[in-house]
Amino acid sequence: MSSLKTVSLNFDFINHLIDNNLREEVLQGQFGLEKENARVDKDGNLALTPHPKAFGNKNDNPYIQTDFSESQIEMITPVFNSIEETYHFLDALQDIVTQELIEADEYLWTSSNPPVLPNDEDIPLAKMEDPLEEMYRTQLAQKYGRKKQLLSGIHYNFSFNEGFLKKLYETSQSKEDYKQFKDGLYLKVARNILKYRWLLIYLTGASPVFNKSYIEQCVALSHHMDEDSHYFPNMNSLRNSVCGYRNEKPLNVSFNSIEEYVADLRNLVQSKELLSAKEFYSPIRLKTAKGENQLLELLDDGIAYLELRMFDLNPLYKNGISLEIMQFIHVFLVYMLVKHDEPFNKEEQQLANKNLDTLMLEGLQAKLWDKDNAVSMEEQAVEILDSMQEMLRLIKPEDEQIINLLDHTKKTIVNPELSYASIVKSELQSSSYLHYHLNKAKEYANYSLGAGYKLAGYEDLELSTQLLLKAAVKRGIKFEIIDRDENFVVLTKGDHKEYVKQATKTSLDSYSTVLIMENKIVTKKVLKQYGIRVPGGSDYRNLHEAMLDYEVHRNQKIVIKPKSTNFGLGITIFTNSFTIDDYRQAFEMAFEHDRTVLLEEFVTGKEYRFLVMGDEVVGILHRVPANIVGDGIHTIEHLIHEKNKDPLRGKGYRTPLERIQLGEAERMFLKNQSKNPLDIPKLGEIIYLRENSNISTGGDSIDFTDEIPSSYKEIAIQSAKAAGATFCGVDMIINQIDHEATDQNYSIIEINFNPAIHIHCYPYQGINRKADDKILDLLFGELD
Amino acid sequence: MSSLKTVSLNFDFINHLIDNNLREEVLQGQFGLEKENARVDKDGNLALTPHPKAFGNKNDNPYIQTDFSESQIEMITPVFNSIEETYHFLDALQDIVTQELIEADEYLWTSSNPPVLPNDEDIPLAKMEDPLEEMYRTQLAQKYGRKKQLLSGIHYNFSFNEGFLKKLYETSQSKEDYKQFKDGLYLKVARNILKYRWLLIYLTGASPVFNKSYIEQCVALSHHMDEDSHYFPNMNSLRNSVCGYRNEKPLNVSFNSIEEYVADLRNLVQSKELLSAKEFYSPIRLKTAKGENQLLELLDDGIAYLELRMFDLNPLYKNGISLEIMQFIHVFLVYMLVKHDEPFNKEEQQLANKNLDTLMLEGLQAKLWDKDNAVSMEEQAVEILDSMQEMLRLIKPEDEQIINLLDHTKKTIVNPELSYASIVKSELQSSSYLHYHLNKAKEYANYSLGAGYKLAGYEDLELSTQLLLKAAVKRGIKFEIIDRDENFVVLTKGDHKEYVKQATKTSLDSYSTVLIMENKIVTKKVLKQYGIRVPGGSDYRNLHEAMLDYEVHRNQKIVIKPKSTNFGLGITIFTNSFTIDDYRQAFEMAFEHDRTVLLEEFVTGKEYRFLVMGDEVVGILHRVPANIVGDGIHTIEHLIHEKNKDPLRGKGYRTPLERIQLGEAERMFLKNQSKNPLDIPKLGEIIYLRENSNISTGGDSIDFTDEIPSSYKEIAIQSAKAAGATFCGVDMIINQIDHEATDQNYSIIEINFNPAIHIHCYPYQGINRKADDKILDLLFGELD
Repeated sequence: MSSLKTVSLNFDFINHLIDNNLREEVLQGQFGLEKENARVDKDGNLALTPHPKAFGNKNDNPYIQTDFSESQIEMITPVFNSIEETYHFLDALQDIVTQELIEADEYLWTSSNPPVLPNDEDIPLAKMEDPLEEMYRTQLAQKYGRKKQLLSGIHYNFSFNEGFLKKLYETSQSKEDYKQFKDGLYLKVARNILKYRWLLIYLTGASPVFNKSYIEQCVALSHHMDEDSHYFPNMNSLRNSVCGYRNEKPLNVSFNSIEEYVADLRNLVQSKELLSAKEFYSPIRLKTAKGENQLLELLDDGIAYLELRMFDLNPLYKNGISLEIMQFIHVFLVYMLVKHDEPFNKEEQQLANKNLDTLMLEGLQAKLWDKDNAVSMEEQAVEILDSMQEMLRLIKPEDEQIINLLDHTKKTIVNPELSYASIVKSELQSSSYLHYHLNKAKEYANYSLGAGYKLAGYEDLELSTQLLLKAAVKRGIKFEIIDRDENFVVLTKGDHKEYVKQATKTSLDSYSTVLIMENKIVTKKVLKQYGIRVPGGSDYRNLHEAMLDYEVHRNQKIVIKPKSTNFGLGITIFTNSFTIDDYRQAFEMAFEHDRTVLLEEFVTGKEYRFLVMGDEVVGILHRVPANIVGDGIHTIEHLIHEKNKDPLRGKGYRTPLERIQLGEAERMFLKNQSKNPLDIPKLGEIIYLRENSNISTGGDSIDFTDEIPSSYKEIAIQSAKAAGATFCGVDMIINQIDHEATDQNYSIIEINFNPAIHIHCYPYQGINRKADDKILDLLFGELD
Repeated sequence: MSSLKTVSLNFDFINHLIDNNLREEVLQGQFGLEKENARVDKDGNLALTPHPKAFGNKNDNPYIQTDFSESQIEMITPVFNSIEETYHFLDALQDIVTQELIEADEYLWTSSNPPVLPNDEDIPLAKMEDPLEEMYRTQLAQKYGRKKQLLSGIHYNFSFNEGFLKKLYETSQSKEDYKQFKDGLYLKVARNILKYRWLLIYLTGASPVFNKSYIEQCVALSHHMDEDSHYFPNMNSLRNSVCGYRNEKPLNVSFNSIEEYVADLRNLVQSKELLSAKEFYSPIRLKTAKGENQLLELLDDGIAYLELRMFDLNPLYKNGISLEIMQFIHVFLVYMLVKHDEPFNKEEQQLANKNLDTLMLEGLQAKLWDKDNAVSMEEQAVEILDSMQEMLRLIKPEDEQIINLLDHTKKTIVNPELSYASIVKSELQSSSYLHYHLNKAKEYANYSLGAGYKLAGYEDLELSTQLLLKAAVKRGIKFEIIDRDENFVVLTKGDHKEYVKQATKTSLDSYSTVLIMENKIVTKKVLKQYGIRVPGGSDYRNLHEAMLDYEVHRNQKIVIKPKSTNFGLGITIFTNSFTIDDYRQAFEMAFEHDRTVLLEEFVTGKEYRFLVMGDEVVGILHRVPANIVGDGIHTIEHLIHEKNKDPLRGKGYRTPLERIQLGEAERMFLKNQSKNPLDIPKLGEIIYLRENSNISTGGDSIDFTDEIPSSYKEIAIQSAKAAGATFCGVDMIINQIDHEATDQNYSIIEINFNPAIHIHCYPYQGINRKADDKILDLLFGELD
């Protein structure tokens, strides 16, 4: 290794950061990702089906679109202030898209290189509403071929913290204005990225092998791994190679100033070398805030962020990228700002291109073209990583994790077999390009399916809210969390805004409707007025009134309870005969808890939760106390353990079901049945572990949506209408669900104005009733 | 007095009541009142103006209508289960009507006898929508003359408790069906009432004197009290005399059975003796539940209640009747059921009529026509009252109040000068019929005005709800209280129902709107999005985040507070410079109270409450701390005492303002100003007694609706619109109200989703902004 350092930090700049309290801030920034994946069928062929309808109108969906081809899904995260949030959102998008595709037995292809492709002309172009957009794609198809366009990758968008840039400007005594100053910084970073991109591409490249259906010329020049799988010996990223997606010939576009950059691009378009400025396939793009007419806006408003376009999908990670690589890229970007400036004119640009091509052909051992002393890429890579570590030790010494990450990165330099591309190639050797990536795709699809109800990065929200947001993202409704603790969000589609709290508290219910449902006495009165059966009874405001009615109730089964029931305190149930003294005592006790006491008919039957949305019963659930079913072999304890393995079961309301405990209450309940946890129940024998059926104590939720006669559904809908409710849970007691509803065989015991939806989407038994989608249908209209 | 009792109880019946546990229930019942008053101008002339528009469409208003004449207001209470509720509702109606009339300097004439009348043909008939109704009144006017129709009175509607009647039927082993049994009971009561009505009329008669503008013939036959005031010596109720409102000749209508009753009335109509069945001016009417076609319904459905029509307006009481008289009538009705049955055919009916006429001419000393032994009315009256007492001692011995009431009633029998009519006549002698009643009318109008914000019988409700219900009653919107503790009501107009809680929680606000307003962080975010100025600031979920922003805030005036502020705990205000340690400590303290801490710009200026309803600012209030203004003569203590005499001031939120206390806090506040309660402030000097401006600690509410420039009102309306609110209170800080609003000189600090309305209707300074009416305009549409 050479002892002469060819890269070095700008210590004046670092000291300036330290002196002006900008160490933390130089490391802040905003991050966004855009990722393309080809859709494939179950055999790894490019899916020729249209972009799924569930993703709504792709022109409107800010999160899920198509790219060049109709078969290429693009996922776009919003911009976040942290890498973690951005990464989690991509994770969420990956899950959402995968869960939808899997219903059609389709998968997200995990390689940047295309799956098995049909003939070039059979690759479907993306259908666009704008005819100009469609024409542009057709022209690209003619110019580059469709196969090449199917190379997929990840774009990494980054901007520095605006506050940091402003403070840096203020403390720099620059003679430029702020826009010039800021553009200058971004251009410096862009130039350095272009120059050192060979290292980034080496570290992130993960597409060393490709299928024989790829472009004939590349296939012909390459080596065989097996009949179908092709490769070039040292090439770790086909995309970034000459076989990848590049302009037809290298274009001279200056990154020295905005003015030069814009002038060069305008010339290229005017001379018809490019169809439009966006056909400039630079590994880095200068982006403006609005992005409607980039060139004009660049001149007027300057650079808002940089788009790095050279990253491969990494098949080793479900999401195609890891959190650590995102962190590394960020540190690399900061380093590009902090290191010494170097000239980067046409010549240096060509050398940078040459270095990359050499890396692709020869690997890290090759010498750099632009160093007089002929430093190898490996040596330079280590130097750069050392210099990055030095920078971090100066500005963020406390972050050992990131410094260690750089140590690890150095290892992948000196041990090329540790690079992603090497790992992929070696793992792939035991199967084939096709099977390896298809297996990965299916494996990741299973992970995504398992994530089910969760929205990555938002696991602190209620499950119902997570589901709603997932459904929103899926169809391209933007969301913003306006009070995280309260699960309060704004959903936005174009000009249409909806404020939603806890998934079902929306603008579609009026305040008075909620107040009706909130109040048990009022709910009963309103339902009764509409001829709906509620437990008979009265409310009393003093003992005297109550005693007057003793005669009326003496032979009934009744419940006496305070109007506001807290933890069941003050409730008496009389199911047999009772004396006037029993009756008085029950009221006296209840009046200790509330000024108003309710006497209610005691209703027998099973309780069902009807989830009403609009004019529809979306789901019906019945809850069953915690239980296991014997198999004649295992103990109760073992069966509980087995049942708890269901990923739907967890602890503390973070899952649709809770694990069954075997605590004091359960043991006591078993004991009362003369059973103990080590008993082996007979095959098919149901053993209950609790009296109460709450989900929170391990109860099961059983979907009955298709079993309950529609006459009961009609009653539930009428109940909601009586209260004026759009979204509600109607709790109905039904005697026998195999009988149609009459005036006598049901009773509505409550209407809940904030019904949980996750229980209907992820029941213990039954199918997903998609209550999340229904909410959005009602708020924003159904998908076309 | 005769020792031979001519009236006696049916002891078998009483024992049956006792044995079957029906003692309480025989005394239960349902009660309603209908009362007419002539409207008069400030001089006591019949008001010739139209029925006030504020009472809405009189055909729809169930509470406030006209009777025969446009100048005759009829007030109708709903049916209640207690005399108290009924009485209070009449009280409320009296206040509501009076408060409206007084705005046009009109009054409710307090006598059953008419005020100063114009010529017969100048008395305006009530304008009716239904031309048949109008024709009927025209025919009546021709048949009886208009003056007679202006005699006004009170109808008392009564039914026994349905449960009581059913139990009585079940325990009676009657051979009749239930309808026949029930009709039989009511008919018995009706016959007895007819027979003994002379006593009721004697006890309630209160119209002994009349004006010379009354019917010429009666005036001619009567005595002069002065030039204008006429009377007949023993006549206590002109209405019930031959000069009163009777059919042209006595009509034979049997009360022995429904069938006979209906047949007789039908014959009278067929023979054209009556224009319709309702022209049968019996002192008692048999009423059905629906009342659309009484005769047909009587045959089909039977009697639902009895209407007693013989009661005079009593000028000694504001409401024309007292609670005690209502109780007496009730006991009398029960007695009519419990006493021995007596035959009551055509002959007995004529004798009863004769007895009444005799009473009117000769007074209580006259002998009864129907007793062989020629008992005097006085003797018989005492016997009846004794027998009523005996009944009460058997069925309700514990109720001394009512037994004492009967003792008092007996005194008015043996001392005729104690009767209402005698008292009225004697009080009247020092002025004149006209002046006496006009003074009474104005005196009672003042009482009603003083009742102001209160709805009689509903004083336990919040003031805002009382005001809303008053406004509803005034325009004829029915109300039902569905949860009294919660101020939850249903308002009904035809088929249109509105559920309203606490006056301003209605169907016009959506749930999400309320949730936005409920949450301070969310409110601020939403207002900001709409470009409305809110105190700047941020919310933090941990100390680290907060510390990062120290630099930004170090030179600002700021407030640091927990998201949910309870009693001001955890709040720090920095109005001067502060160190990073001060800042950290403030956050640490705030985080002890909430997971989220807000940092807000400290805004200076005065706070105003804008009451926004729909697209309008209905009122603007500014609150001032408890204070008095010196007069150079009295002490602070004395001035507080004087200020507290304002009837708007009370204790415990039952009045729009609270009394100023002179407790420890106030004395300390004075002391800090080097003042003490015995100081005499200079003329015009304002002395504050509190720092805080809360109304609850004696603060003043000052109306600024007309002082605040409309630019601020526009901002308040925009704020409401941003949150989507129909009803809300916008709290705005304004620097200087004599400057128009700019982007910088105001700040919205809160939007309240349940604004009190009473403070805008009854401010300390300023006029009634009628927010109550505005709510109804928005819920039900404006009055035509």
